[in-house]
Amino acid sequence: MREENIRALLMRREYPALKVVLNSMNNVDLASLLENFTEKEYTILFRLIQKEKAAEVFTEMSSPMQETLINAFTRSEIKELFDDMYMDDTVDIIEEMPANVVEQILDVTDRETRQIINRLLKYPEDSAGSIMTVEYVDLKKNMTVEQALKKIKRVGIDQETIYTCYVIEQKRLLGIVTAKSLLLNESNVLIKDIMETNLIYVNTHEDKENVSKLFHKYGLLAIPVVDFEHCMVGIVTFDDAMEVWQDEVEEDMSIMAAMQPNEESYFGTSVISHAKHRILWLLFLMLSATITGAIITKYENAFQTLPLLVSFIPMLMDTGGNCGSQSSTLIIRGIAVDEIRFHDLFKVIFKEFRVAVLVGFVLAAVNGLRIMLIYHSLRMAVLIGLSLIATIILAKIVGCCLPLLAKKIGLDPAIMAAPLITTLVDTCSILIYFNIATHLFSL
Amino acid sequence: MREENIRALLMRREYPALKVVLNSMNNVDLASLLENFTEKEYTILFRLIQKEKAAEVFTEMSSPMQETLINAFTRSEIKELFDDMYMDDTVDIIEEMPANVVEQILDVTDRETRQIINRLLKYPEDSAGSIMTVEYVDLKKNMTVEQALKKIKRVGIDQETIYTCYVIEQKRLLGIVTAKSLLLNESNVLIKDIMETNLIYVNTHEDKENVSKLFHKYGLLAIPVVDFEHCMVGIVTFDDAMEVWQDEVEEDMSIMAAMQPNEESYFGTSVISHAKHRILWLLFLMLSATITGAIITKYENAFQTLPLLVSFIPMLMDTGGNCGSQSSTLIIRGIAVDEIRFHDLFKVIFKEFRVAVLVGFVLAAVNGLRIMLIYHSLRMAVLIGLSLIATIILAKIVGCCLPLLAKKIGLDPAIMAAPLITTLVDTCSILIYFNIATHLFSL
Repeated sequence: MREENIRALLMRREYPALKVVLNSMNNVDLASLLENFTEKEYTILFRLIQKEKAAEVFTEMSSPMQETLINAFTRSEIKELFDDMYMDDTVDIIEEMPANVVEQILDVTDRETRQIINRLLKYPEDSAGSIMTVEYVDLKKNMTVEQALKKIKRVGIDQETIYTCYVIEQKRLLGIVTAKSLLLNESNVLIKDIMETNLIYVNTHEDKENVSKLFHKYGLLAIPVVDFEHCMVGIVTFDDAMEVWQDEVEEDMSIMAAMQPNEESYFGTSVISHAKHRILWLLFLMLSATITGAIITKYENAFQTLPLLVSFIPMLMDTGGNCGSQSSTLIIRGIAVDEIRFHDLFKVIFKEFRVAVLVGFVLAAVNGLRIMLIYHSLRMAVLIGLSLIATIILAKIVGCCLPLLAKKIGLDPAIMAAPLITTLVDTCSILIYFNIATHLFSL
Repeated sequence: MREENIRALLMRREYPALKVVLNSMNNVDLASLLENFTEKEYTILFRLIQKEKAAEVFTEMSSPMQETLINAFTRSEIKELFDDMYMDDTVDIIEEMPANVVEQILDVTDRETRQIINRLLKYPEDSAGSIMTVEYVDLKKNMTVEQALKKIKRVGIDQETIYTCYVIEQKRLLGIVTAKSLLLNESNVLIKDIMETNLIYVNTHEDKENVSKLFHKYGLLAIPVVDFEHCMVGIVTFDDAMEVWQDEVEEDMSIMAAMQPNEESYFGTSVISHAKHRILWLLFLMLSATITGAIITKYENAFQTLPLLVSFIPMLMDTGGNCGSQSSTLIIRGIAVDEIRFHDLFKVIFKEFRVAVLVGFVLAAVNGLRIMLIYHSLRMAVLIGLSLIATIILAKIVGCCLPLLAKKIGLDPAIMAAPLITTLVDTCSILIYFNIATHLFSL
């Protein structure tokens, strides 16, 4: 409805009315609404957004749209836009843009800003440095609350957050003061008396995933970042940390479903690219599964004598896969949220073993009953029962060990999820099954 | 190290020194450290924490520990503790405690608080009302910034957040004012001139999952909650929203791995309870897989004539399962982050179909080559190739449709993940495979 309203106003060129509508909208909603218009239309619309709001809407847009806009803008328009932008957002945008657009952006920034941008661009891709901003409020320990509030009033408009201020002495971080304590304390209280000195901070090269975990664990709004000389160089704010966390979850889920992770959205990814992200793992798993096939071939005589044997293969394979996937998923999540570490290996194995025995016996009993009722064969019931129990124990132990081992040797535990575990467990369970079968039925 | 230090001090009963150590620690760290002590020890230690800090540490503890402490406390200690606690935390604790402990807590709260607690307890389990707090700063539109800051100084200490204040008139929410704009504006500016009136708010009965999505989408710190008469009744703060979001991810992952979701931690769940959460789905999937077995039995003659047929079953089943799981994972995530909706069904099917054709041909070609090299049988290569392509197309289409259909009929899309898709696709792919085989080899 709002979109149609805007379309109508745009067609009638009622720019003053459009200005009112656009500027009253939420930045996030406005950015996503503009995506529905043509290049020509959204360039006109974007120019109607008031200056201070424009930078925030711009950072919420998709990269292709940002690129089009920058290319459509005059030098002074670009300057205006980026002057109002937070440093970390500028760096994020620069990272996504082609060289000629980056040139246009750097061309309009002053020397000092350019230096900071270049420094920020140099941090390793997944580091705290790569997601931090250098804009924060710094205070001195001998300031009073009143002086601190005055300083915030003077510099605050350019800072991404003013809710946590940093007490700095000779570039070192001494403590933090929250806006809450500034607001609740009397104006003559000294900063050093209300600052929190029990600090949580990270190094510029800390993995950004660990940074986002700290936000969760401690419920932070911002975290200070220090360099190797322990000088304060910036902060990571919670919106960026949340984004990292969301990306990690998406990445884990992709890997767990045997896909290479992809930062683009589902519809934003082309068919070719979707296929590329999926095919390597499928090929690898398909070829691994032929090993199971080769094992089956060895027992040709067995199932030619007793063809019924073949019909239990899917049930055994699926159950093994499902049991393994349950265990590996729990362990992968446990590792991700820092509950489970490598030194818990034996504790985890023991726990999974007991769960497997319980689950195995119940499943074996139900299936045994089913087989007795349908095939009236106790031997068959025993065969399937034993195979099920062995498969389930194996699946649960493989499923809990592999993610922990992967973590230990520096791999992502998420690759040890359902698909790989299933393939591994398949091979073993088929071996177990036919071995028990040949003995029980003297094949 | 810190733990040992505390143990040593505790043994020597050096309480003043202990006090200093404990009170200088971060609340979250302190709560998790206390878990390592015995009941008797942590009861002593907890009493050494200063009053204002104690409530915050308490809210970070596990439920069994909270229960032990409440049972060990005197009435006045309980009162002191809960007087300092935010209302939403109190409600969270009450929800986890047995009746006798709840009585002890309600016994020490005043009538007004008890009424609020009872009201909060009545909201549906997954609603915004169940995670909101009623403690927020409310302002009037004709106040000046100075008056607003004075009010915050007066009431702020008891509010969970003071960074977003709410402008209320006759119980209705008129607008919000951030602490940032209060700090950056001159003291004589009127609230109504700086308040944001383009509001994002939720109803008390809104699903808490949707509430947490709004935090993500708009980068909020708090969101106001209104009742059916549009009167403001509370706020949800970002720490609670993040917790909901994390729980949702855990829940989705559990369901996707064929487990009933479990709010407890991995080690915090008993073996029996682990088994209970896993066994129902395993039984259901195991019994479903027997259908595939029954189909295989029908083609006994085929594989007795050509036993090699059996050896390709695992490869076909695994590939089908993996392809289906890739698609369903992408769609389940797409639904979770609101990118994919039911009306995209045909768009999604068309996309997955094209991906499937691409992937199918590559996999069929690689496998065909392998079969030609090993078995020198063009017919076998064609059989496996066609079966693979058909299975992959089927798997991807089933994998993308079912989560969307589940969502449409009000089920959790996550149940349509790898395990169920695999079982379904297995049955179909075995049918396809043996049908093509009997035709190609005239069996």
